[in-house]
Amino acid sequence: MKVGILGGGQLGRMLLQAAANYTVETYVLESDLDCPAAHLCHHFTKGDIRDFETVYQFGKNLDALTIEIESVNIDALDKLAAEGVKIYPSPAAIRIIKNKIIQKEFYKNNEIPTSNFLITNTIEELQKHEYFLPAVHKIGEGGYDGKGVQIIKEPSEFSKGFNAPAVLEKMVNVEKEIAVIVCVNQKGETAIFPPAEMLFDPILNLLDYQVSPARVNEKVLWKAEAIALKVAKSLQSPGLFAVELFVDQEQNVWVNETAPRVHNSGHHTIEGNFSSQYDMLWRIILNYPLGNTKPILPAAIVNLLGAPSYSGNAIYEGLEEILKIENVFVHLYGKKETKPGRKMGHVTILSNDYQELIFQANKIKQKLRIIS
Amino acid sequence: MKVGILGGGQLGRMLLQAAANYTVETYVLESDLDCPAAHLCHHFTKGDIRDFETVYQFGKNLDALTIEIESVNIDALDKLAAEGVKIYPSPAAIRIIKNKIIQKEFYKNNEIPTSNFLITNTIEELQKHEYFLPAVHKIGEGGYDGKGVQIIKEPSEFSKGFNAPAVLEKMVNVEKEIAVIVCVNQKGETAIFPPAEMLFDPILNLLDYQVSPARVNEKVLWKAEAIALKVAKSLQSPGLFAVELFVDQEQNVWVNETAPRVHNSGHHTIEGNFSSQYDMLWRIILNYPLGNTKPILPAAIVNLLGAPSYSGNAIYEGLEEILKIENVFVHLYGKKETKPGRKMGHVTILSNDYQELIFQANKIKQKLRIIS
Repeated sequence: MKVGILGGGQLGRMLLQAAANYTVETYVLESDLDCPAAHLCHHFTKGDIRDFETVYQFGKNLDALTIEIESVNIDALDKLAAEGVKIYPSPAAIRIIKNKIIQKEFYKNNEIPTSNFLITNTIEELQKHEYFLPAVHKIGEGGYDGKGVQIIKEPSEFSKGFNAPAVLEKMVNVEKEIAVIVCVNQKGETAIFPPAEMLFDPILNLLDYQVSPARVNEKVLWKAEAIALKVAKSLQSPGLFAVELFVDQEQNVWVNETAPRVHNSGHHTIEGNFSSQYDMLWRIILNYPLGNTKPILPAAIVNLLGAPSYSGNAIYEGLEEILKIENVFVHLYGKKETKPGRKMGHVTILSNDYQELIFQANKIKQKLRIIS
Repeated sequence: MKVGILGGGQLGRMLLQAAANYTVETYVLESDLDCPAAHLCHHFTKGDIRDFETVYQFGKNLDALTIEIESVNIDALDKLAAEGVKIYPSPAAIRIIKNKIIQKEFYKNNEIPTSNFLITNTIEELQKHEYFLPAVHKIGEGGYDGKGVQIIKEPSEFSKGFNAPAVLEKMVNVEKEIAVIVCVNQKGETAIFPPAEMLFDPILNLLDYQVSPARVNEKVLWKAEAIALKVAKSLQSPGLFAVELFVDQEQNVWVNETAPRVHNSGHHTIEGNFSSQYDMLWRIILNYPLGNTKPILPAAIVNLLGAPSYSGNAIYEGLEEILKIENVFVHLYGKKETKPGRKMGHVTILSNDYQELIFQANKIKQKLRIIS
């Protein structure tokens, strides 16, 4: 079977590591020849995943296509799907998720709990909604890794907003942020990974530390699973969906947003679960039975981000010390250049003891610095 | 760091899957363009690993070289080592192991327990040693995967022997066969994986099923570890060494033979141990601290061999059923053509319960057939 991946970043890299457990023939389309996934596929094509003709030519002789980033040319995927190429997830599902305005309307239309919101097209429009603060302003298209998101607590911060189609979401009184990955196969059968619990870097606004299974009570777990399942089913597509959820102080659960692909919140599943998110996506594409989402051991991950104010050839300061820790697994993405906040790798920690997970995660965050 | 692998089979494939956790730039030399490792390296070179000039040209601009099979041109490795390329293991260690006569003499000279043996050069010579039977006749060079080995119990079987330099080894009254993988880093520090316990297919003479950690008593474990460590230390080389051992009915431990590389007996370490044998070899080459050899859970593996009397495009009969089992991990090597007894993949099973491991291993052996 010939399967293409649009995008060649770290998610593609880990997808291809998992692909080598099966007999699939792999293709990658990406404009950067030195991207993390370039050397791990059978066939690499240099090209822009946002360009109609490039995506169409890349996909037309393949059996199936998947994505590792949403910013792809969906019109080309529509045409390929019409010609019989299987797309995971469906172009319609990507279209819903790619635009944050349409995504929010999708939740509302499907009665999926999500914070109240309104749509703005200009900063001028935004400024009329003082009564709606505190809120989060998200650009409709083009946001990624924390870019395209602004927290607006007071009217004085309106100027941070986007002068473009965007969604203004009521801020949720968040107690905990969790993510649930839902897998949907070609027959519509589903499997759910236990939720991961996330902590963010308040400055870079990037996920940089998480534990799984999340420490939530049973009722929250049920709600989270039911909501995540409803999101995935409402998208009406096979594929893998990472649903990010807020748990508020009253233990209500709200969808924040969804990624229609393998996701940072599932990195720990490589070592921590019987079937990883990457393995699971191949099982879906290859029409194999869904895998086992149960944890082998509880896990934490630390994202390795480029240290502030360093740009250039990456140096992994403190790596040796981290590699000495008995229960950690290091994943470096092979990106030559570091930049402040760039995702350069992650470290997974396994332990039955959550205290140990958190202790090691903090140690890793302190000791390992990516500089230039 | 630029690292080359001589050989592109399944061991190379799994090495490259592990390499993608680090920033190493990988090179593979192999004559088969469609080999299991070809598409997972940064740079593939088509060529014969037994040819002096080919190996020398491949290696001369690299920082380090390793092997996934012993039948390489060692003279070229000598020259490369002299010019500063690091070789894992050293050419001298490969030379000792590659020839089974020299290997046996190495054990004897280093007072490492191994069964008695004598050297034969022709069938005629062999026939003089009736008093030495039952014995095992092994060809000096060129044996692989059970080829080049003949069991000779009675004089009538002398004709099965090799009309070439070979070693005739007294047959050990084997109760159990185990394998211990020893890791030696550049400073000479060592780490030992818990032994794996092996069962062989009596017809194809290929390892096809194993459990780890081996079920042996503490004294046998100590002896096995001490002997394996002595083998590795006597080879005086950094690298990874798989020492195959016999435990006889009196609980004595004897070295059968050693592989100076990642090995079939360590496949289970991918999922079963904190650091896998593949990860460990990269740690040695990249001069990182040695990893943790402790098991996460006990593991079994089943080798997936081409079914007798099928040759041609591989079909994996029963694969779906195996993929449904909750605690198994499937590894297919992506070889297009199956042949009787060809290693086409393996399946790892994890469980705290040895009965469960053995039950699932037998089920997999029965259900999964590789035909054409």
